[in-house]
Amino acid sequence: MKQETVRISIIGFGYVGSGVAEVIRRKREAIARKHGIDLKIVGIADLKGVIADEQGVSEEAIRALKAGEKQGDMTSLDIIRDVAHEVMVETTPTNVETGEPGLTHIITALESGRHVVTSNKGPIALEYQKLMELAAKHGKEIKFEAAVGGAMPIISLVRENLAGNGVMSIKGILNGTCNYILTRMAEEDLPYEHVLKEAQEIGIAETDPSKDIEGVDTAVKLVILANSIFGMNATYNDVKVVGISEITPDALKLANDAGYVIKLIGDVDSDGRLEVAPRLVPKDDPLNVGGTLNVATIKTDLAGEITVIGKGAGPIEAASAILSDIIGIYS
Amino acid sequence: MKQETVRISIIGFGYVGSGVAEVIRRKREAIARKHGIDLKIVGIADLKGVIADEQGVSEEAIRALKAGEKQGDMTSLDIIRDVAHEVMVETTPTNVETGEPGLTHIITALESGRHVVTSNKGPIALEYQKLMELAAKHGKEIKFEAAVGGAMPIISLVRENLAGNGVMSIKGILNGTCNYILTRMAEEDLPYEHVLKEAQEIGIAETDPSKDIEGVDTAVKLVILANSIFGMNATYNDVKVVGISEITPDALKLANDAGYVIKLIGDVDSDGRLEVAPRLVPKDDPLNVGGTLNVATIKTDLAGEITVIGKGAGPIEAASAILSDIIGIYS
Repeated sequence: MKQETVRISIIGFGYVGSGVAEVIRRKREAIARKHGIDLKIVGIADLKGVIADEQGVSEEAIRALKAGEKQGDMTSLDIIRDVAHEVMVETTPTNVETGEPGLTHIITALESGRHVVTSNKGPIALEYQKLMELAAKHGKEIKFEAAVGGAMPIISLVRENLAGNGVMSIKGILNGTCNYILTRMAEEDLPYEHVLKEAQEIGIAETDPSKDIEGVDTAVKLVILANSIFGMNATYNDVKVVGISEITPDALKLANDAGYVIKLIGDVDSDGRLEVAPRLVPKDDPLNVGGTLNVATIKTDLAGEITVIGKGAGPIEAASAILSDIIGIYS
Repeated sequence: MKQETVRISIIGFGYVGSGVAEVIRRKREAIARKHGIDLKIVGIADLKGVIADEQGVSEEAIRALKAGEKQGDMTSLDIIRDVAHEVMVETTPTNVETGEPGLTHIITALESGRHVVTSNKGPIALEYQKLMELAAKHGKEIKFEAAVGGAMPIISLVRENLAGNGVMSIKGILNGTCNYILTRMAEEDLPYEHVLKEAQEIGIAETDPSKDIEGVDTAVKLVILANSIFGMNATYNDVKVVGISEITPDALKLANDAGYVIKLIGDVDSDGRLEVAPRLVPKDDPLNVGGTLNVATIKTDLAGEITVIGKGAGPIEAASAILSDIIGIYS
């Protein structure tokens, strides 16, 4: 098979970014064999430092960067602009108010003639149309499967596997932290505060869990689905949001006795309704998945309802979605 | 958007074939707008007769064909060979012993320079490698998403959305008739024969239900997954098959009391194991879906377990998968 070298920069080298490097290390040979593209990481940038090597950055340099050793004087934008490469992978932390620094990274990459693959929700939720227009202007692609459901495919599922279908609605559980908390509360009859503390201790909830439990994270993902799949021009303010902090063990018990569970459901439909709220879900509904799983049911005009379930978070899982997006650009 | 005309023949005009014609009629404009391809049916062949029109067959001709009016003297093979077109859609009934007449249709189409999209399990299960080689030789594609899970994407899900992942196993419910029977038996505490009769009355089971209930249909689908996803060279005889006719209401009740349901599960893994058998499935497992739904859990090395649920049968659902396959050839 003819081999094409695809040079990659990774901007943002936390859990997801280093997951991408790890996954490329593990899979490089198999991908070259199967898809005919040789993935080569030529630049990595992070607050901790920057490494670049047009022959491919070494394992040693990556380890040194992770260990916090400052490497060279380039900035992230220098890497994006000045190191020749084909795909910029943007994995800096999400900022849903400004989209930065991801937004500037993505704009700079497109203007420098790089394709963009990102897990960063902020820029996509805030400036979807502008970014798509910029990508089209430069003849580049921008892909963001990892931003919505981690390893669980939704956007590519609708666009490719369900191509030809009209989509009426998408609803599901798009936040694993909330799902974990509600699942544990229901199973163990424990109060919200207790389970939240437990989730924080085992690293499932953040020290400041408000973005997850108040539904902000789910709402931002809904905005991305609204804009990318339904062609809307929605923003966070268009979403009606209620979180899970008021759910009591009694409510879960009442639901259980009636054959239901309570889940934080995000719901977007083709009429432009965008809602995040705790909902009763019948126990035998495909949306009733436990633990930290994510799930989405896509209602279509031809295929009926298609449900997909998978891990919404985790560095290797997010890297899996990023890798599939990169391969998708070249096949 | 630049428009490309894609001329299509439909060989086999039963439920699925006429579903394809119906779906193209409904979706032609939207697909042209969205994907830049103008789908035009230029030939239809069936045991009842044949119609062909290089300008696109008319609704009147389709209605007449459905009504059983013999139309012209061409054969199916004449249509495939002599009517200029790009994609042959093969939707004749499955024959798992010989693969015919689908096998000859597909070979003829590839040799005539047509892409092939099919819902026909027989040829793909029997002659996968030969057909892939022939397609490669002629520079054409052969796609068969509709053959395995109806509207539920599996093959394209693994190949595209999960590209880069190694697949360890796929297991699931691939036959809606068996799922319906086991679901009803469990819910209503009814014996097998009673529910089978009910399923036959409402058209969910065939008059001769043996292919479904004895696991043959599931096994053939597993063979397709084994060959197309795991690169095996398996045949039906490699599958260990047990059907559902010995399942009793007592067994279902015992399972229920222990927190399980019984489902007919097809299971293929990268070690070459191919099995179809009734299995205990925990009630809270994503594989526990009811009614006629199909489900598959794909175990991968990066994305973890991804589960997809959808309607495995139905003419419009199968046509949906065929339509996505056609669009996939051109995007």
